[in-house]
Amino acid sequence: MSIKPLLILALAIITILSSCDTKQENHIIVSDIAGYNNAISKAEPGDAIILKNGVWKDAEFIFIANGTKENPITLKAETPGKVFIEGVSSLKLGGNYLVVDGLHFKNGYSPSNAVVEFWVDENNIANHSTLTNCVIEDFNKMSRDDSDLWVLLRGRHNTLSNCYIEGKTNRGPTVRVDVAGRESINNYHQIINNHFGPRPTKGGASGETIQIGDSFTSMSPSYTMVANNLFEKCNGEVEIISSKTNFNEFRNNVFYQSEGSLVTRHGNYATINGNYFIGDGVNENYGGIRIINTGHTVTNNYFYSIIGKNFRSPLAVMNGIPKSPLNRYNQVTDLVVAYNTYINCASPWQFGVGTNINQKDVLPLSEIRSARPIRSIVANNVIYNEKGDPAPIIEHDEADGVSFKSNVINNQAVAFKSHKGVKNVNFKVKEIAPNIYIPSETLNTKAFQGFGFDEFSKDLFGNSRQNDNLVGASVTTDIKNPMILDKSKYGAKWYSNEKELKEPTTHNVTNADELKIKIDDAEDGDIIMLKMGNYNIDSSLQINKKLNITAEDNSNTTINYSGAKNTPLFELQPKGFLDLKNLAIKGTNSQFTFSSLKENMFTHFGLNVSNCVISDFDYVLKVYKESFAERITFQNTTILNCVNGLELSEETNDKGDYNTEYLTIKNCVFTNIDKNVIDYYRGGYDESTIGGNLLLTNSTFTNCGAKEENGILINTRGIINVNISENTFKNNPVKLVALLWGAKNNSHANNKISNSGEIIVEENLKLKLFY
Amino acid sequence: MSIKPLLILALAIITILSSCDTKQENHIIVSDIAGYNNAISKAEPGDAIILKNGVWKDAEFIFIANGTKENPITLKAETPGKVFIEGVSSLKLGGNYLVVDGLHFKNGYSPSNAVVEFWVDENNIANHSTLTNCVIEDFNKMSRDDSDLWVLLRGRHNTLSNCYIEGKTNRGPTVRVDVAGRESINNYHQIINNHFGPRPTKGGASGETIQIGDSFTSMSPSYTMVANNLFEKCNGEVEIISSKTNFNEFRNNVFYQSEGSLVTRHGNYATINGNYFIGDGVNENYGGIRIINTGHTVTNNYFYSIIGKNFRSPLAVMNGIPKSPLNRYNQVTDLVVAYNTYINCASPWQFGVGTNINQKDVLPLSEIRSARPIRSIVANNVIYNEKGDPAPIIEHDEADGVSFKSNVINNQAVAFKSHKGVKNVNFKVKEIAPNIYIPSETLNTKAFQGFGFDEFSKDLFGNSRQNDNLVGASVTTDIKNPMILDKSKYGAKWYSNEKELKEPTTHNVTNADELKIKIDDAEDGDIIMLKMGNYNIDSSLQINKKLNITAEDNSNTTINYSGAKNTPLFELQPKGFLDLKNLAIKGTNSQFTFSSLKENMFTHFGLNVSNCVISDFDYVLKVYKESFAERITFQNTTILNCVNGLELSEETNDKGDYNTEYLTIKNCVFTNIDKNVIDYYRGGYDESTIGGNLLLTNSTFTNCGAKEENGILINTRGIINVNISENTFKNNPVKLVALLWGAKNNSHANNKISNSGEIIVEENLKLKLFY
Repeated sequence: MSIKPLLILALAIITILSSCDTKQENHIIVSDIAGYNNAISKAEPGDAIILKNGVWKDAEFIFIANGTKENPITLKAETPGKVFIEGVSSLKLGGNYLVVDGLHFKNGYSPSNAVVEFWVDENNIANHSTLTNCVIEDFNKMSRDDSDLWVLLRGRHNTLSNCYIEGKTNRGPTVRVDVAGRESINNYHQIINNHFGPRPTKGGASGETIQIGDSFTSMSPSYTMVANNLFEKCNGEVEIISSKTNFNEFRNNVFYQSEGSLVTRHGNYATINGNYFIGDGVNENYGGIRIINTGHTVTNNYFYSIIGKNFRSPLAVMNGIPKSPLNRYNQVTDLVVAYNTYINCASPWQFGVGTNINQKDVLPLSEIRSARPIRSIVANNVIYNEKGDPAPIIEHDEADGVSFKSNVINNQAVAFKSHKGVKNVNFKVKEIAPNIYIPSETLNTKAFQGFGFDEFSKDLFGNSRQNDNLVGASVTTDIKNPMILDKSKYGAKWYSNEKELKEPTTHNVTNADELKIKIDDAEDGDIIMLKMGNYNIDSSLQINKKLNITAEDNSNTTINYSGAKNTPLFELQPKGFLDLKNLAIKGTNSQFTFSSLKENMFTHFGLNVSNCVISDFDYVLKVYKESFAERITFQNTTILNCVNGLELSEETNDKGDYNTEYLTIKNCVFTNIDKNVIDYYRGGYDESTIGGNLLLTNSTFTNCGAKEENGILINTRGIINVNISENTFKNNPVKLVALLWGAKNNSHANNKISNSGEIIVEENLKLKLFY
Repeated sequence: MSIKPLLILALAIITILSSCDTKQENHIIVSDIAGYNNAISKAEPGDAIILKNGVWKDAEFIFIANGTKENPITLKAETPGKVFIEGVSSLKLGGNYLVVDGLHFKNGYSPSNAVVEFWVDENNIANHSTLTNCVIEDFNKMSRDDSDLWVLLRGRHNTLSNCYIEGKTNRGPTVRVDVAGRESINNYHQIINNHFGPRPTKGGASGETIQIGDSFTSMSPSYTMVANNLFEKCNGEVEIISSKTNFNEFRNNVFYQSEGSLVTRHGNYATINGNYFIGDGVNENYGGIRIINTGHTVTNNYFYSIIGKNFRSPLAVMNGIPKSPLNRYNQVTDLVVAYNTYINCASPWQFGVGTNINQKDVLPLSEIRSARPIRSIVANNVIYNEKGDPAPIIEHDEADGVSFKSNVINNQAVAFKSHKGVKNVNFKVKEIAPNIYIPSETLNTKAFQGFGFDEFSKDLFGNSRQNDNLVGASVTTDIKNPMILDKSKYGAKWYSNEKELKEPTTHNVTNADELKIKIDDAEDGDIIMLKMGNYNIDSSLQINKKLNITAEDNSNTTINYSGAKNTPLFELQPKGFLDLKNLAIKGTNSQFTFSSLKENMFTHFGLNVSNCVISDFDYVLKVYKESFAERITFQNTTILNCVNGLELSEETNDKGDYNTEYLTIKNCVFTNIDKNVIDYYRGGYDESTIGGNLLLTNSTFTNCGAKEENGILINTRGIINVNISENTFKNNPVKLVALLWGAKNNSHANNKISNSGEIIVEENLKLKLFY
């Protein structure tokens, strides 16, 4: 071919590509929703509908079409990652053999129950369809209780692959498989090669990353495969994955710095094989595998430095409720736990988790988990502890229905209560990759061959067990780095969540106007430095990014707030993380120092106050309903002469929600606070939500609580973790300093109390069950 | 070959066959249990161990061996049907590819939990093994509460085929599949070509003919196939087949004169295809298919003259309990009822069966069945009523979760409350065999094609639906007699339950000694004729067969009983069915007229008294615990001057048992009976056991009940069906004549009551739940 025809061809192609809605070969480029709809209505097998690069705002894509196995119909970005779906937008698929590729959902939220749904209506359910190479980021509804899903799989044989999904804070699992209806059972969906990025703590239930079915469909065969995904900081709630149907498989996933567990919550016969659970030996919220129900196999999994307790332990085998209601806890039966390796985990095997026989007085009999695991086997596992563990096996209730066979432990000769079938062996381990250790020598222990064990034919790394039938997750000591934390293996090809660290800019301000301007101008992470002086502010300062506001001098800088009644000095908006230091802050008795928005808190805020003096406000902190901060901290701060103190008690619908995960008060002084001195509330009881944390230490309360209606100074009703210690309570006219919940992790120690009532611990608080 | 060598060979064979325990080729003949054990211990693939003809008494066969698919190991009768296993005997199988063939179990009972068990111990479970061509007959434990099974299938891939099984009266299903443990799930057992002969009413729960799993294993996949069996008079309890696990199939079975239903009691996704339910338009106890739980398909079934109500209706779709406990009632979801034909059935479709919303006051919330069926479809069915039915569809609770599509009914223009999707068509039917009618013309109605309907590819008779996708169980009007009641197609080849009718012999007796002798000598069904006169009897007459004892003259024949205190004149033993007529019977106030045995009532008795005068006894009838009569009847009989009347109230363990199915009292006179005039009791509540029937009519009670402790004349506590009508109650010193149970089928009408208290109806009796 000479040059000329080539040029003509190139021109022709350019001409075609630059015109809209043009069909050539199989590519139809569309630039608006009308063009899209038109293209879809005509789509034929093999067609690719190309969304032009740019922002698609308020776009509700309905993708109903029928491709074929050989010629699917594709909806894709002109350039992957350059098509942004924003505003009130969603995508629904119905039909067969559809593929969606390369879209980026951000700056928006779904108008319906899902961002991407494999279902349009009952006549248009998606089958054999795929969402791949896409990103969904911070696509939260405007309020936390407004529930949705980001990906809702229905139908059969659908795939969610190579997507990156991050930042869900509202109610509802990130991904759900719905199996209600014959059309969606035996679905064989594939959720593979995705990168599930951070999902912050939700502060209540319904924050799973993946949920498969629900208790009402827990009798249905699902056969959903969840494989080769990376879960990074998936902290939404206590269950990262909640399997609630039958015959699901979880293979070769990596759970990294994720505060939760893989839980077989309902349904039976799950296969949990070859997954990695990577902890750090510090964070007790990183969990492992929690087992409920019948017939699961847990094989070839690897646990590193997981020190979660009880529900969050590396292997948590629960007690069931005899003749359990459908939505509660069936007994564990026919469990097989084989060929797993536990390195430096704390009490990795826990049985009878959730036993609550001692709660008989406050819970109905149908809530009492007294049915211990039966017909279960724990075989061929390896435990290695660099430092000996006094209790590698914890029996919350007797593990008399569990047989232990051919398990090996190196506990550094530290004594523990063992079982027949758990053998002490003095072996060494070697690091083959960060977080990955394997025995450096062959453990001379023949694996037990139980019924069906021939199906466990490969080890964690894919090596055959045929010839070397050895205990533990690996059959050989010769393993290459499995590169499990190489993020390029997961998620969308064009997207990385590894952001460059930006050096914060410091903005110096000398007066109130400057302060306002700089707060608006600053970039995320910047520092606002207040020169010494008085700053008279008359309307709220809006905090919608991470800001550090601090006085240069730590004693002579004052902000005087004269704003309207019931307005905050600092309005903490979504993504507003305020770090405040060295300031005196004064109101005129009718305002708030800090508050969240009353509504539309579509994602989290945060607050850290240190070395401040706050006085003369109506409320120091008012957190409105559906607002959530992972952390709120007051340190070395004096709070005085206010009507109300820290108020986080609006989650009154008793669904287990609360307003902050960690409320920390250290070295503070509270004086003359009339009521709600600290009011931190969680309503509704669900044994598996284990949040709310109050740490109150080294602080002094004087003349507080005079107008507290319930007569309690520190209110923590429903909060699971409370620690009140080393404080001084003096001359507070209340009946009680605190009423603690003994059955949960509530404690008090070394407080000096005078003329202030007392601290009472009630073992079992009666709360409304919310399930 | 010349003659001589042939002769020598024949002689050799004869010699070998006539010696015991000799191995030749693969046949090992054994004649005692030691020889059997020896043979089994050496058995190799292909071997046949032959049990010598005769009675094997107290033989506990342990059959542990390993055959192969090509060469199973067989245990068989020398001549099928000539080897009788009697006494305290059982058979347990463990290993692979075992076959048991040709044995007859009778005159005995099992010493353990089963007569034949596919399990020896946890190391010896049977797989790929078969019980075939055998008979188990009347092999009851000695007392009704001593529970066992006659065939217990465990392991995998086992078969129960071509067996005849009859007469179980003790507690426990006749055949059970146990799926507890991984070794027994996905079992693919085959229960095929059997003839399940009469199983009499048990008088309480746990009288199923086949039970597959239990509620505790109801989450397990079973895949048990029950096909081509004949169920004849399987009346044990309300469930003939109780499916309690997942993925079971029920195909082409015939339910004939059987008082019960095929019930998906627990577990999900049962396939119920091509079964025949044959009623007679008279007996309301013959049932159909009762549906609970998720995902069942009911297709191609044929229902003829089934007039059972409610739980026993041809199609009973139950209400569930929201979030049901494991052992109660899950909601019906995803049900498909398609291509079934209903001929002359009464109200064949019933929805919301078991709704008990109005029982809220007496039952806990976890017992209230308020969850209606959802996501369910009833399509392509045909109903034909020779006489129009005013309510072919009954909604005990709204069927708003059920879609009706392309159903056809010929209701002879009788109006009824219909649904969209149920079309009136005026078609005719023709009889192609006894009980089998099909439309005689093609119904011009196109079948609805629902999701998954392509799987219903054949009709009841095996014809393809591919081309003629028509409604109803058959796609063509050209069907030959399917010979479903040809008994030679079912059960053991060598056995028939069709017995020749014997003409009864009449034995004339003239004195007491003769009476005794003839009672002992008579054969089953014979008549003992008493000549006029007085018969003085001083010890019990033992009735252990069907006997008709009658006085020739109907007014002048008296039996005077002077036996010991607390002994009965007529001792009703197992199989003792007494028909008594025209006699005056007199005691000396300390004995019983009739009683069962105190123990060892291993099967039923019966009593019919007419035209008699009974006086001066302690008890007229005393039925001991664990004794059961299907029918006890008193007609035209006077009972007077006794301490106690009819006492059937010893089933006090509150497990739902009772002592007679039908207690009938017609045209009788009760005078001067101190207490327990009629005391008929059933303890323990289970909504699905629907027995106990008292019919009390046209009778007169005078001066009765003076010493009745509870002040009630007619005691019927817990009995479901009570009809007290047209009676006269006069001068009985009691508080109440009767206390009836309004919520059940208790009624009273047209009684004349004077100076005798009253009849009270209490809507909801509080009873102990026994599950």
